[in-house]
Amino acid sequence: MSVEFAAVAGPDVSVDALRRFSFNQATAQRWPLPDVVSGCVQAGVPGIGLWREPVAEYGLARAAKLVRDAGLTVTSLCRGGFFSADDWRAENLRAIEEAAALGAPELVLVSGGLPAGSRDIGGARQRVAHAIGELAPHAEAAGVCLAIEPLHPMFAADRCVIASLGQALDIAERFAPTVVGVVVDAYHVWWDDTVYAQIERAGSRIAAFQVCDWVTPLPEGVLLGRALPGDGCIELRRLREAVDAAGYAGPIEVEVFSAEVWARPGAEVLDAAIAGYLRHVV
Amino acid sequence: MSVEFAAVAGPDVSVDALRRFSFNQATAQRWPLPDVVSGCVQAGVPGIGLWREPVAEYGLARAAKLVRDAGLTVTSLCRGGFFSADDWRAENLRAIEEAAALGAPELVLVSGGLPAGSRDIGGARQRVAHAIGELAPHAEAAGVCLAIEPLHPMFAADRCVIASLGQALDIAERFAPTVVGVVVDAYHVWWDDTVYAQIERAGSRIAAFQVCDWVTPLPEGVLLGRALPGDGCIELRRLREAVDAAGYAGPIEVEVFSAEVWARPGAEVLDAAIAGYLRHVV
Repeated sequence: MSVEFAAVAGPDVSVDALRRFSFNQATAQRWPLPDVVSGCVQAGVPGIGLWREPVAEYGLARAAKLVRDAGLTVTSLCRGGFFSADDWRAENLRAIEEAAALGAPELVLVSGGLPAGSRDIGGARQRVAHAIGELAPHAEAAGVCLAIEPLHPMFAADRCVIASLGQALDIAERFAPTVVGVVVDAYHVWWDDTVYAQIERAGSRIAAFQVCDWVTPLPEGVLLGRALPGDGCIELRRLREAVDAAGYAGPIEVEVFSAEVWARPGAEVLDAAIAGYLRHVV
Repeated sequence: MSVEFAAVAGPDVSVDALRRFSFNQATAQRWPLPDVVSGCVQAGVPGIGLWREPVAEYGLARAAKLVRDAGLTVTSLCRGGFFSADDWRAENLRAIEEAAALGAPELVLVSGGLPAGSRDIGGARQRVAHAIGELAPHAEAAGVCLAIEPLHPMFAADRCVIASLGQALDIAERFAPTVVGVVVDAYHVWWDDTVYAQIERAGSRIAAFQVCDWVTPLPEGVLLGRALPGDGCIELRRLREAVDAAGYAGPIEVEVFSAEVWARPGAEVLDAAIAGYLRHVV
C-alpha cells in the first residue's frame, strides 16, 4: 500500500523536491519530538516516521495532535513484531491502535529473532506467518497496513528471522495487499542479487521505502553502523527508481541508526539527511 | 567436486567417527603449523585445511612434505579470489600452483568486495565471473577445483560480493563441476530460507563443507565473531544431512574465526572442535 501525499507549502522548488521526503525520528534519536516536528516544518519536510517509545513518552494523543497541528503526515510507525516475545499479541494489538490514532498508514513489523537457545529458524518463521495471520483482521479493521520489514541477514538470529524481501513477500502474499505489505529498506536488501526482481514482484505491496547507507567497519553489535544517504556504497537512486517502476509513489523515509549521527544536533542531521536525499536518492 | 578419504588409523570407533573431520588451521590461528599437524595426528584427525600465509611462512615445499609425511589429507587451501585487487591474476595463478603443490583438491575463492568508492555491486559481480573464467583453464590444468565461497551478506561491501549460495552457483554452473564448484560454509548460508533448495541444486558442485556456529553480539568488524560447532544457533546437523543428500561425501572442515577461541591453546581448541563436531554435526 502506498501513500500519495502533497507538498505542505507553495510552489517553491525545494519544497517540491522534498514532496516525498520523510524524516524518521530515529535518525535524530536524541531530538525531542516537539523539536523534530518544528524542525521538519521549518525545513519544508512534509512527512515524519515515528517510533512507539518516544510517542508513548510524549503521550499518544498529544503526539498525534502535535504532528497533525504542524501539518505533517505520519508516514509510518515503528514498530510491531517481535513475535518471539510472550506478550506479542497484546503488544501488537496496542501498536495497531497507536498507528491508527497517529494516522500512520502502516505499522512496520520486525519479526524478532530466534527464541533463546533455539536453532529452529524454520519454526520461528512459521510462527511469524501465523502471528501476522492473527493480527491481519485487527489491522484491517483499524485501517492500518501491516508492513513486514525484512532485516539484513546479520540480524537473523537476534532481531528478525525474515531476512530477505522474497521471504517477506512469501508471507505478505497470503493476504490482501492493503492489509499486509512489505518495507523496502535499502540498508537491509541492497546486497541481494535478486532484489530488483523482488521489488518488481512486490508491486503494490510496497508499503514503505526507507533509505540510509552502508559503511564498514560495522560496529560491535552491528546495529548502529548506518550512514546518511550518499555516505556509503548502496545504489540508492537505482533502488528508488526500481520501487517507483514497481508502482510505488509514496514517501521516502530517511532512517539512520548511527552512534556518530546521533551525537550531532538534530537540525544538522536533518539538513544532512535532506542534502543526501536530494543528491543521491531522487 | 568431493573428496572421499579413508580413516588414517585402524578400526577404532573414534577414528571412524572422525573419518570426515578436517581441522582448518585458521581455527587455531596462533598454533604453529608443525604443532597443528602433530596435534591432528595425535587426535586421530585425518584432514587439515590450510591457509596460504602460514604455508608460505613455513615454506611451500616444506609444508607439503610435513603434511604428507604425517599422513594427513589436505582438504582445502584458503584462499584465492579478491578479484578487486590489481594483481588478482598473478596472485590467483600462484594460489592454484600452491594448491596443486600441497595436494589440495580445491582452492577456496573469496571474491573480494567493492572497489573503494564504488557503488556498482553488479559490475563487481560481473568481474568475478569474468576472472573465474580466466582462471578456470589454469585450474583445470593443475587439477585444482576453484571453489567459490559465498560469504554472509554482511561482508558484501568489503570482502565478498558473492553473498548467497544461489549466486555462487549461477557462476559455477557456467563451468564443468570438476573445475568450478562451491563451498557450503554453514556460517555464511544458515540464514537463507532457500539454502536447502540451493544445496540440492548444487549437487556434485559442492567442493567443500565447512562448519562453525553463529553467536551474537557480533564484534566490531564482524570477522572474529564465530563460535565452535554447537555453541550457537545454526542447525549444523540438518545442513550436513542436506549436503550429504545432495551427494557430497567429502570432508567436513571446522573453521572458526574467533578472538576468544584463538586465545586458547591449540590442542584444547582442536579437542573442543572435535567434541562439537561429534555432538552437533555428524
